[in-house]
Formats: sequence, structure tokens, C-alpha cells
Amino acid sequence: MPFLLGIDGGGTGCRAVLADAAGRILGQGRSGPANIVTDLEGARGSILAAAGQAGAEAGVEVSAVHAVLGLAGANLPDYARRLAALLPFARSRIVSDAVIALKGALGEADGVVATIGTGSVFAGQSSGRVSQIGGWGFQLGDEASGAWLGRALLARALHAADGLVETSPLLAALSGEMGGPEAIVDFARSASPADFGRHAPRLFDTDDAAATAILAQADAWIARCIDRLAAGPAAQVTFLGGLGPLFAARLAPRYGARLRPARGSALDGALLLARQEGQP
Amino acid sequence: MPFLLGIDGGGTGCRAVLADAAGRILGQGRSGPANIVTDLEGARGSILAAAGQAGAEAGVEVSAVHAVLGLAGANLPDYARRLAALLPFARSRIVSDAVIALKGALGEADGVVATIGTGSVFAGQSSGRVSQIGGWGFQLGDEASGAWLGRALLARALHAADGLVETSPLLAALSGEMGGPEAIVDFARSASPADFGRHAPRLFDTDDAAATAILAQADAWIARCIDRLAAGPAAQVTFLGGLGPLFAARLAPRYGARLRPARGSALDGALLLARQEGQP
Repeated sequence: MPFLLGIDGGGTGCRAVLADAAGRILGQGRSGPANIVTDLEGARGSILAAAGQAGAEAGVEVSAVHAVLGLAGANLPDYARRLAALLPFARSRIVSDAVIALKGALGEADGVVATIGTGSVFAGQSSGRVSQIGGWGFQLGDEASGAWLGRALLARALHAADGLVETSPLLAALSGEMGGPEAIVDFARSASPADFGRHAPRLFDTDDAAATAILAQADAWIARCIDRLAAGPAAQVTFLGGLGPLFAARLAPRYGARLRPARGSALDGALLLARQEGQP
Repeated sequence: MPFLLGIDGGGTGCRAVLADAAGRILGQGRSGPANIVTDLEGARGSILAAAGQAGAEAGVEVSAVHAVLGLAGANLPDYARRLAALLPFARSRIVSDAVIALKGALGEADGVVATIGTGSVFAGQSSGRVSQIGGWGFQLGDEASGAWLGRALLARALHAADGLVETSPLLAALSGEMGGPEAIVDFARSASPADFGRHAPRLFDTDDAAATAILAQADAWIARCIDRLAAGPAAQVTFLGGLGPLFAARLAPRYGARLRPARGSALDGALLLARQEGQP
């Protein structure tokens, strides 16, 4: 019977868990960022470091494990293929981080998982069939994410400076703090998605007109994606990610009792997939 | 009486014209990119090269000229200040490229100039008072520009892949050419505004549903900015930039006889400002 390895790798860190064929956890590990698109070699290093720790704790060689890796960027098959060729495991299956989050949150139940952090991605399960919306990254997607919200707020501050929209206390405060429109543009020229995302939380704690307008767009986008993926009008809806609880609260009137916490973590989801892989 | 130097510097090139105090042109020059935000030192080099050519042709030392420079990025005062300290001219005034385009197009008349190329910027003149909307760059602005249109098209191809919008012949063709959604995302990760902008022209020559939807948004944005800047319901409207003629045609039903060609070039506008500077 093989040993199982689950990996959860994203832009901020990588976690590993090693278990026996029955799912009993024998070892764990943790390391640095593992986004295969932005840094394939670095991601490989983080994955091996976390897996090595878990293997050492379990007393198991990682060359003997069946691994399932849920990774940010794995929806881009080129990168997933390149990584797969560099891994030492007996067997490797690479899926997106959204898929292991979904499996961890739902197990085999029908439902939708909306993960809203710096980025955004939506995954749905219907009779075991998994589909995904979004997760395309900040340049073209990540609608309603922290980065998207922060960018929308800064863009609106420029629109207010141009007289195209009413200003608001939040926009005026933001512009003052940052040093005016020119400084906002300067910030944006080199800002990462995480840099934009740091401006997002302040939208949630106010009834400021600018915040209300931006969040209404985000709410509508999230609901559109969830409703597209939901197997039926009663399917479970789970919010994950740093902004997940905030949007769950905002969308509680829409989803009511369908809103449910995740059953388990993304790492649990990776292990669940690894166990299913081994089954005939 | 001083000699006058007009400079028109943008992301793709820099032009200079040197004239006597009456506006008679004595020399001209042309050089490479001069965007002071993306490359201040390079912009300075281009400006000096173009000015040097014009000075040599005119037989005039550039240290003797009163210069007006209309530059991309000059609406960010920090960069304009830093450049000003590096210039050899007897007197230098730095304004945005939008302002010299406006002066060249309108002279002293009331009106609005919409410059839509890779970026977008709108300038208006009302009883000699100049104001500007946009020109903030691609990260937070440049709505309706070529870069914005191209990005919107690619984002919509991803939305179609996710089942969020209907696909269309244009979206299907684009996705096929580029190699599918993953390749589109990969392209966008490193694409410059000009790279995105290369996808814009194909939107204009079709009644494809995706193109129609995206262009309707751009039309609405442009009209909003023009109407905000127009001194009155009869003020002249002039379109400039690579996509200017295409939007002028689209918005002809709205602006009718108010649509007028530019009286002169941006370089003419820079010289006009230089002449006005010299007046008591």
C-alpha cells in the first residue's frame, strides 16, 4: 500500500501532509511560496522542502509517495507539466489550488466554494464533477478579489479627481494619505496584486458611497459565478480566503442556510484526492 | 528676441521644431521615445537629440531657446520637475502631451480634444482655460484606449471560456489563434499596453456581439468625458490618436457638425504656447 502526500501551495506558502493509505497522518511540513507561474524553480524548492519535512517526520522516503498537489497557477497546463517533470514522487497529480479547496470544503457533496483573497476563484461540484470559474490572475481577471477591489478604489479616486464621479469621505481620505492623484498613479505603476489588495479591507467597514458602489459590483460578480456553478438552488455555498467571511456576511441575505463552513482544509482535500487516486 | 523650441514627446518618438519669435520655422528634429515616467534619462536623451537636430538646422544654440515641451507623463509633477532640472534650454515649460495637442487642434477656440491611441486622454478649453481628464496610464485608467479595448477583449474571451458570457465568432477566433485561455493568461502576464492595444483594431470592423458590447462601453466613456469638458453644447470636438478616426465615425451621430479636424499638430500647439509665454 502506498503512502499519500497532500500539498497545498500558494503565493504565500506551501504546506504538506503525509498519510498512510487509510488517511492517518504521519507527518507534516511547511515552507515558502509555491506559485508555479511566477516562480517555477522556487515553487519546486518549497514543495520539496515541505514534503521533505513531512517525510522525515513520518520516516518515509518521498520517492515512495503518491502525491496530489493543489497549486496556484496549476490551471495553466504548461507550468503544471513543467513542474511534474521535476518532482521526485512515485506518482504526482497536479491540480489547481481551487480544486483541493473545493474537495476539502465539500468532500463529495454538491456545492460551490468561492475563494476570495488577493485573487478570486470559484469552484463547483455537481455529482462529483468539478468545474472552475476564474483564477486567471489579476491582469485579466480576479474580479471581486482584494487586488481588484483595491485597484477599483484607486481608479475611482482618479475619476473623482477628474470630476467624473462624486468624491466621498473615503476617496478624499485615501487621496490625502497617498499624496494626491499623481502619487496614486505612481503607486499603481509598480504595485503588485498584494499591494493593491491592502487597500481592500477598508471598503467593508463603512457606508461610504464609493465603497458601496464598488462592493455592489463585487457582490454581483460573486453571485453570478456562484449561481453559474451551483448544481441546484439548494447547493451548499462556502466562502474561503481572507475576504471570504466579509463577502459571506454581505451575501447572507441571498444564500441564507446554504452558506456553510468548510468541512476540512485544502490539505484535507488534497489527501482525499490522493486516497481516491489509489482506488481502483 | 528669443528663439522658440517646441517639443512633442511620447512613448514612441520625440519631435522638435525651432522657430523665430514670429513663429517662422528654422529647423526640425526627430528622435526616439520620450516618456518621462517610464524612462526619464532616455526621455532626456531623446529630447536633447531632437532639439540638437533642430538647433543645428537653424544654426541656433539650444541654450538660447525658450522651450515648451509637451510630454507623455508630464501630468505627474514629480517627473516633470526632475526633467526640468536636466534641460539645457534658456527657459523650459513642461506640459502634458494632451495640452499641446489641444492647443494645436483648437488654437484659442473652445472645444474638446479626445486623444485615443494606446492610451486615452481628454483635454478641454473654455475661454482659454484648459482642463484635462484621464491620461493616468493603463494600470488605473486609459479607459476606451487601445490597450483597454484589447484587454477587455481578452478578458471577455476568458469569461466566455468560463461560461459567464456567450461566446462569439470573434472570441472563438481569438482564443484559437492564441492557443486557448491558458495561453491568453500567459500572454497577459507580460503584455505591455502596446501589446494589448494590438488586439483593438479588429473590434471595429465587425458586428460581432462581443465587439459591439465592448465598444458600446468605450463609446459611453468617451462621450462622458467629452460632455464633461465641453464648454457648451456647440463646442468643437476633435479626435486624435490612432483610434481617433474610428471613434469619430462611431460618435458622428452624437456630435454631428461639432466634429472638426485639428487646425494644427501638437508641435504647432507647443510653438503656440512658446510664443504666448514670451508675450508680456
